[in-house]
Order: sequence, then structure tokens, then C-alpha cells
Amino acid sequence: MTIQRRGPWQVTGTREVYHNPWIRVREDQVIRPNGTLGIYGVIETTPAVGVVAVTPDHLVHLVGQYRYTMDEYSWEIVTGYSARGEDLLAGAARELREETGLVAQQWTPLGDCHISNSVTDQRGYLYLAQDLVAGQATPDETEELAVKTVPLAEALRQAQASEIQQAFSLVGLYRAWHHLHCPTG
Amino acid sequence: MTIQRRGPWQVTGTREVYHNPWIRVREDQVIRPNGTLGIYGVIETTPAVGVVAVTPDHLVHLVGQYRYTMDEYSWEIVTGYSARGEDLLAGAARELREETGLVAQQWTPLGDCHISNSVTDQRGYLYLAQDLVAGQATPDETEELAVKTVPLAEALRQAQASEIQQAFSLVGLYRAWHHLHCPTG
Repeated sequence: MTIQRRGPWQVTGTREVYHNPWIRVREDQVIRPNGTLGIYGVIETTPAVGVVAVTPDHLVHLVGQYRYTMDEYSWEIVTGYSARGEDLLAGAARELREETGLVAQQWTPLGDCHISNSVTDQRGYLYLAQDLVAGQATPDETEELAVKTVPLAEALRQAQASEIQQAFSLVGLYRAWHHLHCPTG
Repeated sequence: MTIQRRGPWQVTGTREVYHNPWIRVREDQVIRPNGTLGIYGVIETTPAVGVVAVTPDHLVHLVGQYRYTMDEYSWEIVTGYSARGEDLLAGAARELREETGLVAQQWTPLGDCHISNSVTDQRGYLYLAQDLVAGQATPDETEELAVKTVPLAEALRQAQASEIQQAFSLVGLYRAWHHLHCPTG
């Protein structure tokens, strides 16, 4: 038996317990930092990309869709999974074009984050998209999307009021707001 | 065969594909809004609770731990899973006490969010904890935690710089900052 170190944990074995085209679930056999034996179930996904698309007069594009997991309608920034091997910025530009038809001339990274680091390995990469040019949206066949624009200040109010719910979108909106309002800090 | 409506989707069957003490994974057989057949894999968890614990001079308590899923050390607000059937605020107070030893005399809800709504059904509930009284921390045996305080403004800088990474923690810190700095909206 080979034991692999993983930070202060040790991994003594692993098995795939489920996969579909979007996620893979593995269960690792582990020795915890305190020496006790256990398991850790990890959901593996490709990275997420999120785009805060803002006009010169600070209107932000929000995308609305029914979220199957929550059984709820949700207004979000442009988000999607990057394709395997795809450049992250290219993936962000693809999702922006697919969901809104927009092409952006100016891209600013808004950093990254752990989407849900107690159970998934997914990292999300955020971008501010500006200098937007309209085109033709081509949503994925599994998606049924609505698009609207609201003032960024109104989106922040909705973020504070939990009217916008997706954590990744919230991080994108807050980071965009602070970037645009406090650019030196 | 019974077909259940779920928003604009229809569910024609479901099976559990994996469970452990923390998550359950099910695969639903679905008819998508556009009429095509497919599957949807959903990770089920109990709700998450997150606590932004702030002193009168606006120091925020951050908890550091190695995150197994990401293979990375991560500084976060106080977070945890609520226990099944546990009151959410009681769960937040329990996590605060376990991870930092603190007891808070004043609790303010900071709303909720979808932790990762493309693959999990997890909702996270955030609280601002103030009027803190020190006590004895009793971390879970699977956790090895460090605790420090930093000025909330410095935590915001770290949030903008992606030095703080967990999306749920980021939402909590930004909401707390806006709540404390822009209390009327």
C-alpha cells in the first residue's frame, strides 16, 4: 500500500464512486492530521468562469435561470464551466457570447475563489468585461436563459438583500464594485 | 412511472449513487425544459452557517485550515455545517464557540446564498456576531484550526486580492463590510 501525503493528511487509497459528464465523485481513504482513520468524498469538476459585464454607464448584465439543484429561479452574472483544456479567459469570453451575445474589448481579472471547498475541488475565475459589443446569443441546449441589465449599485443592493443568491456571482459583483469604486485599494 | 414537475424540468426517476456522513449524491432522470432527455447529478448536504465575528474596533476573526479538497491552506470566516434539525442561529453560535471559543451577545443576519447551485443543493446562512466574550475553543476532531484577528478593512483588501479564497467567506466579509459601512442601504 502506497501512502501519499496531502498537506497534513495522508491518503491510503481512492476509488471513483460516480461520474457524469459534469462531475466526478471520488472517495479517498485518509489518515487525518490527528492520526484517526477516515474517508473524504470529493466532487471533482472543471474550473468555473464568471463574467461581470458592465457598460460605460455602469449597467451590469444579469442572467436569469431556473436552478434545478435549488428548485429556484436565480439571477446571476454570466457563469459557466470552462471546457477541459480551454484557456480560462477564452472560456469566459465564450460563456459571455453564448449567454448574452456580447463580445468584450476589455477584460480585467477579478481574481479567483474556492467555490465550495469542503466538498468540491472547483476553483472559480472572475473577470470584469467592458467595452461591450452586441451580437447573437447561442445558449447551450440544456439552458433556458433570460438576460437583463441593472445599475451596478442596484445589483449591490440586491446582493446585500439576498435577492441575488449564487455565492460565485456575489463574489464577482462585490469585487467588481470595489474595483470600480476603490481602484487604488 | 410517475413524472414530477420541478420548475420547467420534469423528473422521471431518481437513484442514490453515493453517500457518506457529510454528503449524499443522487442522479435524477430528467426531461429538460427544451424537451430533451437527460440526467442531473445533485450533491445533497445540510445547510452551511458562516459567522463574521467582529470586535468593537472592527477586528474580524479569521480561521485558518488546510482544505483537503483544494490541497491548500485557507483563511476563512467561521464556517460549518448545521446539524440535521438544528436551528441555524444555534448552529452558527455552536460553530463560533467550537472554532474560536467566542460567545456573541449580538447577532445580525447577513442573509443567505446558494453555495454552488450548479451541482449542490446547499444553502449558506451568514451572520454578523458582535459583543464577543472569550471562552474555550473545542474544535472538531477532524479539524486542525488556527485563529487570528485582522482589521476588517485588511480582510477586504485580502478578499479583493484573492488572498481569501472561499466564496462563502468572501460573501460574508463583503456583506459585513457593506452592512457596517452603508447601514442604510
